Amino acid sequence: MAVKSRPGGRTAKTKAAVFEAVGALVAERGHAAVSMTDIAERAGVAATSLYRRWGDVRVLIMEVATEQLMRDHPLPDTGSLAGDLRKWARTIAAGLKDPTGSSFFQAFVATAMPRGQPGETRTAAMQGRIDQITTMLERARKRGEKPPTLADVMDHLLAPLYARALFGTPASEAFAEKLVERLMTED
Amino acid sequence: MAVKSRPGGRTAKTKAAVFEAVGALVAERGHAAVSMTDIAERAGVAATSLYRRWGDVRVLIMEVATEQLMRDHPLPDTGSLAGDLRKWARTIAAGLKDPTGSSFFQAFVATAMPRGQPGETRTAAMQGRIDQITTMLERARKRGEKPPTLADVMDHLLAPLYARALFGTPASEAFAEKLVERLMTED
Repeated sequence: MAVKSRPGGRTAKTKAAVFEAVGALVAERGHAAVSMTDIAERAGVAATSLYRRWGDVRVLIMEVATEQLMRDHPLPDTGSLAGDLRKWARTIAAGLKDPTGSSFFQAFVATAMPRGQPGETRTAAMQGRIDQITTMLERARKRGEKPPTLADVMDHLLAPLYARALFGTPASEAFAEKLVERLMTED
Repeated sequence: MAVKSRPGGRTAKTKAAVFEAVGALVAERGHAAVSMTDIAERAGVAATSLYRRWGDVRVLIMEVATEQLMRDHPLPDTGSLAGDLRKWARTIAAGLKDPTGSSFFQAFVATAMPRGQPGETRTAAMQGRIDQITTMLERARKRGEKPPTLADVMDHLLAPLYARALFGTPASEAFAEKLVERLMTED
């Protein structure tokens, strides 16, 4: 009876309710304390249908965390790579300092590395960021700029922001800009 | 009756058995699937005494992961900062590629960020690395070298190695050396 994939239909509404429940629960308790049963209860759906669709609570949390992280960071288009990266990096830094953003990032990191999964699943967790960087670098090349490589942006801009959020004090937006400057003045 | 702190005595033996059990279980199943009961059973001790001493399984796993990571990486002393950092970074990269080292690193990351703890506990997780870098930089300064800052080593050497291990393909030892070269040629 149910039209399973009609946009805005029952399935879309259920998904929205489930994602909202996951977001609220992760922000309240942290991802490690959220179970499929909790999510089902909060969203008003059957836990069995969550298991059928996502298999494991980590897969579901990862999907919500990834969507949330991407929604919070639309891609800037300022006309120069330095401008784009500055804006992009500031937004990421701000997100990592914010308690909700930080909860999602912690969920993202924890669920990005389920043990025993092939390495591709980890990389997949970063695919959204890789796509964003690739778009910015591509636009820069088309404008005739000489951009750094994707790997350089990952290693020297994103990695320090993530490592500081994980192991130290989350970076300030000013520090994020400094990383961009350093990256842009490399060889 | 028990002499609680005699070195090599009962307490030390119990601790060794507990640490060995944690190491084996984390390597076998991943940290998320290891409980205090599992550890107590494997080590042949009462779970209550583990709870009394460590309070929470995450605290215990963190302590073992930190000790393991440090034991695997003694501090090199080659006579130059570039030499020290190259050797140090290669060892870290090799550890992050190794399945057991990788299990411990994943445990380290996951337990480094319990939700709701003050930021200091996260930084504490990195204290061993910070001490090692500080020692190498201090020795370099005493030799009259002009070393980079602690923050630069963290952001542009350790962060990329950790981020690649978490989100992509663990870095090769050759790549670790390249990061050192880049760091040492920065102004």
